[in-house]
Amino acid sequence: MAPSAEVIRKTVDAYIETVATGTAAQVVALYAEGATVEDPVGSDVRTTREAILEFYSVIENFDQEAHLQTLRIAGNEAAFHFSLITKLGEQTLTIAPIDVMTFDDDGKILSMRAFWNQEDMISA
Amino acid sequence: MAPSAEVIRKTVDAYIETVATGTAAQVVALYAEGATVEDPVGSDVRTTREAILEFYSVIENFDQEAHLQTLRIAGNEAAFHFSLITKLGEQTLTIAPIDVMTFDDDGKILSMRAFWNQEDMISA
Repeated sequence: MAPSAEVIRKTVDAYIETVATGTAAQVVALYAEGATVEDPVGSDVRTTREAILEFYSVIENFDQEAHLQTLRIAGNEAAFHFSLITKLGEQTLTIAPIDVMTFDDDGKILSMRAFWNQEDMISA
Repeated sequence: MAPSAEVIRKTVDAYIETVATGTAAQVVALYAEGATVEDPVGSDVRTTREAILEFYSVIENFDQEAHLQTLRIAGNEAAFHFSLITKLGEQTLTIAPIDVMTFDDDGKILSMRAFWNQEDMISA
């Protein structure tokens, strides 16, 4: 049975919060066993828990905040536009991708694909 | 060779304009041979030109306008959030999905998947 929209929404909210302020392990805990990560779309797909953990470890210690702009849920999938703002001293780096996720019956993330490219990074 | 971001952007712009104000045939002309349409995500995938034409014929004669909110391009794919506003007398019906498309080398649409559900329709 597909997860309810409410369950999917909770996972997306938790994802955005933990990406910004949680540990890499907390982010990975939102993923199902066997999950895949393609970020950005077109790059090599990460297929192991270790590779996904490594991916999120890179941003783990940054001073960040994240905000959900738009979330659309359909079936057991979701697409959402969010912004991740990283503070680097007096500077901020904003990246606002559109992510597409599929979910298992428990609302865990089965796959994540992030749509963005270098031009979408804004330094201010 | 993957199409450039500029080529993809042009197709997305043309898509949004023709969906709102063009004919169904004009929309279908933006699709590659063998293209697929899944709208909304989770529904049956349309795999023939006839089925795709039928899909767009339904909204062909409506008084509509469309606006692109956010477009993210990665590799030969794009995700974009746009709003389609249909005028029904004094009423307006707004649907603002996130669409995901893949493109062939010429920038024609190979696949379209639309993320939205009934709750995303706003009548005003």
